[in-house]
Amino acid sequence: MSADSNTAATVADLMDGLGRAARHAAAALALSSGEDRNRGLRSIAAKIRVAAERILAANQADLDAGRQQDLGAAMLDRLTLDAKGIEAMAAGVEAIAAMPDPIGRVSSEWQRPNGLSIQRVSVPLGVIGIIYESRPNVTVDAAALCLKSGNAVILRGGSESFRSNTALYECVREGLSEVGVAADAVQFVPTTDRAAVGYLLSSMSRWLDVVVPRGGKGLIRRVQEDARVPVIGHLEGICHVYLHAAAALDMARAITLNAKMRRTGICGAAETLLVDRANASNVLPPVANALIEAGCELRGDAAVCAMIAEATPATEADWSTEYLDAIISIRIVDGIEHAMQHIRQYGSAHTECIVTDDAAAAARFCREVDSAIVLHNASTQFADGGEFGMGAEIGIATGRVHARGPVGAEQLTSYKYVVRGSGQVRA
Amino acid sequence: MSADSNTAATVADLMDGLGRAARHAAAALALSSGEDRNRGLRSIAAKIRVAAERILAANQADLDAGRQQDLGAAMLDRLTLDAKGIEAMAAGVEAIAAMPDPIGRVSSEWQRPNGLSIQRVSVPLGVIGIIYESRPNVTVDAAALCLKSGNAVILRGGSESFRSNTALYECVREGLSEVGVAADAVQFVPTTDRAAVGYLLSSMSRWLDVVVPRGGKGLIRRVQEDARVPVIGHLEGICHVYLHAAAALDMARAITLNAKMRRTGICGAAETLLVDRANASNVLPPVANALIEAGCELRGDAAVCAMIAEATPATEADWSTEYLDAIISIRIVDGIEHAMQHIRQYGSAHTECIVTDDAAAAARFCREVDSAIVLHNASTQFADGGEFGMGAEIGIATGRVHARGPVGAEQLTSYKYVVRGSGQVRA
Repeated sequence: MSADSNTAATVADLMDGLGRAARHAAAALALSSGEDRNRGLRSIAAKIRVAAERILAANQADLDAGRQQDLGAAMLDRLTLDAKGIEAMAAGVEAIAAMPDPIGRVSSEWQRPNGLSIQRVSVPLGVIGIIYESRPNVTVDAAALCLKSGNAVILRGGSESFRSNTALYECVREGLSEVGVAADAVQFVPTTDRAAVGYLLSSMSRWLDVVVPRGGKGLIRRVQEDARVPVIGHLEGICHVYLHAAAALDMARAITLNAKMRRTGICGAAETLLVDRANASNVLPPVANALIEAGCELRGDAAVCAMIAEATPATEADWSTEYLDAIISIRIVDGIEHAMQHIRQYGSAHTECIVTDDAAAAARFCREVDSAIVLHNASTQFADGGEFGMGAEIGIATGRVHARGPVGAEQLTSYKYVVRGSGQVRA
Repeated sequence: MSADSNTAATVADLMDGLGRAARHAAAALALSSGEDRNRGLRSIAAKIRVAAERILAANQADLDAGRQQDLGAAMLDRLTLDAKGIEAMAAGVEAIAAMPDPIGRVSSEWQRPNGLSIQRVSVPLGVIGIIYESRPNVTVDAAALCLKSGNAVILRGGSESFRSNTALYECVREGLSEVGVAADAVQFVPTTDRAAVGYLLSSMSRWLDVVVPRGGKGLIRRVQEDARVPVIGHLEGICHVYLHAAAALDMARAITLNAKMRRTGICGAAETLLVDRANASNVLPPVANALIEAGCELRGDAAVCAMIAEATPATEADWSTEYLDAIISIRIVDGIEHAMQHIRQYGSAHTECIVTDDAAAAARFCREVDSAIVLHNASTQFADGGEFGMGAEIGIATGRVHARGPVGAEQLTSYKYVVRGSGQVRA
């Protein structure tokens, strides 16, 4: 046997072991009480607080290695943890514990003429595989949301955050063990071997009910190609802010600045600004100035470059680029139809915003733009489960099947029908 | 270029053409009014009634060919249409038209402390591919449900029902054309070339948002292997009736007989009977007699064979076989735990029933059995969208992602979030 096939066998054994343990834990978890699961969550939060220094040290080691490997600024930003971030993680887990139990809820209930009573009752999905990159807090958020919703989970983080993820996973495991709640329900792939991702996607349909990929284009392409289990997709966010002819200047400036620059590395950050020609000469210069002052690079079409000296020409590729950085592409459009056509052509159906005082234009934009989140007069950076009031999120789903938009605990459930009769048979 | 690659190119061109047309129609359909879509549906129903003789003649040709090819009895049963069935199809389409519009519905709505108002609004899935076998009414039911829910659809029926499907598809197309409603929204693969299924599954992610397979194990395996688009799976139904120790004899007999014999070829037909040992000697003989009198073959474990002279020994394979025929496997179990363990091991998570007068046992069974539909004191043959009050169904989904149980118009939708603000930016 060659070394390669030895490795392959080892990865397969390792992954099947994780899968078997997760499947076993999922069956128990599905029948656990909400209070048991909440006890586990609170115990995890306590462990995270106690281990803060250990987590920060592991994160520092990841950051040092990342800088040596010339990771980009956006990647390093997403990778970085600090004391405040760790406390926020622990508090986030407690907030998830405090939310209502998403399992066993009767979401619909009706009676048939023949006397049958039908209930639709929420149940866990089962075992969820989560493949993610850079951001270590996903380890904790995803584990907590899966536990809350009665699911077992297999976590596979990026190699760049392996040390941080491992430290956080230890808190999860210890927290659950200490209170005797389903410690096996959260599994962590303890290797950066990329073969593990391939095996998880292609050969674990026995153990996995769904895979949630969170990452860049390379990961998404791989998942699309290799997955033999259902996928809840999290694509990139090429988010648009559209300044309609009836946009108020102050609001246009404040929303554009926030949508682009509040945090450039998140998927809800705006990447393209569309400005109605009718109002461009009034609105664009002050908006552009605000962006430039905040350190943003502008790439515009010819009309924009003619108006804004600092703008450089945008190429065709710019319109479909997720910069995740302090860069914005700007285009002048001929009204709402043109704006929506641009979004249809270049967008990723994630999040778009219209700024306008015209109610009819807003209503049309909200109805016709086919994205997971459509906002009127609010920043695209609100595209976030926490901001939606869901407590936390795995990410923003851009697919149309199962869940769309922020994926919180409620979105990680399935349902079953319970039908109660008194001896009914079908005619 | 060889003949083979010529054929492949032709299939690819053909399928891409259907996909492009469907995608184009879907965009228009998503913005159509519910009343427009209902007008299209009513026109289809009228066309079906007018074309009844043409449809029956096509169906007769399919049946003749099927008999020549030695199709099984269950397959021929599912393939057969009669005048009553055609009228039921037309009436079914009208019933779908009369249902509330599933699109544009606000399923949830809330306000955030910062003043943002959030609505979750139902939208179509987009373009749905439906791959089905034998039953020609799926052509009409699926087209109607997809139209109702604002989706375009690409239909690919089985070769054994190709003539029937073609005749029915002509009614759909003519019905829509006549009233000028999205005639391109329903596409039909006009060839029995199996390469078309492969292409649809593997190479049409640009045109398709989801695929719904309805068929036997071979199709399901192929879909799982080849699909590069999301799948709403419809697996086989290995449905169980469990006669608990506290089952009343008359009800046990009536439900078992109906669950198995009312119609043996549907996925909600019972395939396995589980009987508590504590009550078996009282309940099993009369239940078995009723089945035998109705023409059912019994295959039992050793204890059953000792009790029922007509029963032949069941093999291990019987417990996981979907007969779709007048055959039932019977096993004696040691109480509810054992019954649920059998269902977990051999079932397909479709539909299970407990017959009992013991409320605690019923509650436990309904809570712990992890199937799409769990019934207490009612026949498994109620596993049907129509019987659930959904109007019609594409089938019974056995996956856990997106939809589970009967898939009607409401299950063929996605949603988006509409967020309305007054200039909010994120802190």
